[in-house]
Amino acid sequence: MFTNVIKVQSSSMFSCHPVTEKIQNFLDTSQQLEGVVCAFCQHSTVGMIVNEMEERLILDLGKWLEEMAPIAQGYKHDDLHLRENIPADEPKNAHSHLRALLLGNHVSVPFKDGKLQLGKYQDIIMVELDGPKERSIVISIQ
Amino acid sequence: MFTNVIKVQSSSMFSCHPVTEKIQNFLDTSQQLEGVVCAFCQHSTVGMIVNEMEERLILDLGKWLEEMAPIAQGYKHDDLHLRENIPADEPKNAHSHLRALLLGNHVSVPFKDGKLQLGKYQDIIMVELDGPKERSIVISIQ
Amino acid sequence: MFTNVIKVQSSSMFSCHPVTEKIQNFLDTSQQLEGVVCAFCQHSTVGMIVNEMEERLILDLGKWLEEMAPIAQGYKHDDLHLRENIPADEPKNAHSHLRALLLGNHVSVPFKDGKLQLGKYQDIIMVELDGPKERSIVISIQ
Repeated sequence: MFTNVIKVQSSSMFSCHPVTEKIQNFLDTSQQLEGVVCAFCQHSTVGMIVNEMEERLILDLGKWLEEMAPIAQGYKHDDLHLRENIPADEPKNAHSHLRALLLGNHVSVPFKDGKLQLGKYQDIIMVELDGPKERSIVISIQ
Repeated sequence: MFTNVIKVQSSSMFSCHPVTEKIQNFLDTSQQLEGVVCAFCQHSTVGMIVNEMEERLILDLGKWLEEMAPIAQGYKHDDLHLRENIPADEPKNAHSHLRALLLGNHVSVPFKDGKLQLGKYQDIIMVELDGPKERSIVISIQ
Repeated sequence: MFTNVIKVQSSSMFSCHPVTEKIQNFLDTSQQLEGVVCAFCQHSTVGMIVNEMEERLILDLGKWLEEMAPIAQGYKHDDLHLRENIPADEPKNAHSHLRALLLGNHVSVPFKDGKLQLGKYQDIIMVELDGPKERSIVISIQ
């Protein structure tokens, strides 16, 4: 009743998906008026952030993440032949893990009078870092 | 009753403002004994962190953020003439957004016996990244 | 009853310690079925993350953190002779603080039916950044 899972289908290797409306909708259904919502992504190569959903800023974010944790830098996690018990389709995605650690994989947002207390220029955004994939976000209302 | 907004006037482009005492005061008023406090900043160019409020470390933090996301790197978000519906006083602040994403814009801190369970060298600190401005932090007690 | 402290003895300067099982055990004891667990580390030179506990990825993480915030870069926090009231054994650890800020020092994880709602490749991991030391993590069930 207070926990739900939403699915987001990402569209490319890097893409940003605002989920504010989906979370507000679940909050409306819960009929809770005051508390905190936790949105937790169940994947280790996805980020969850609160920031401005401005298209040119999203381009800057993609470029910046590539600078902060570039793809294919001889990461040990990407030596698939040296790892055991991995799926046949295991991707080389160490950079995606590092980018996810930089952003964090969950956010907590207070609500009051049944409304998320986001600022004027804030959205809750899922940041795909190893897509395209279908992703699961657990929403918990406290 | 369990949600409050505190205002912080920042003093410069980059500045750190401990808010531990304000949050503990609100916690005292609430008379709650055990739970978690969420402090959520309603701006996309401000960080919220838990760390040591040591003046020389703050200088290191400012320098490090400038290295991690330097000002004026030809960010697309800073091409104001290519964006629509922006206020007349819109700043060029893509670097501030990226720095805020690096730090995060909210923290959750457990409390017990009515006291925030911070370590000896920990403060809750608002990190202004695009000041000086008046900023709003939503405090929610769960 | 809903707040507990777990201790983790780290093994080296940089080391990763999964604490999922300890947190699930405390959750079992609490007999709560649905909510959010907050795991908050009471130190300013330790990270708390949710990610994949894969040994080669951990090596990548250590190397990446050294690139992002290298040791001994002339940090002002490390000029111990210019700081007042510091313990005799104060370490030069500005880099550890910056790395901790990059990762964050606490996580929030939803649970349902008494089980942490982590993904298949997710663990709750304490990341020691200035060890070896004994560290305290406050666990709060909401």
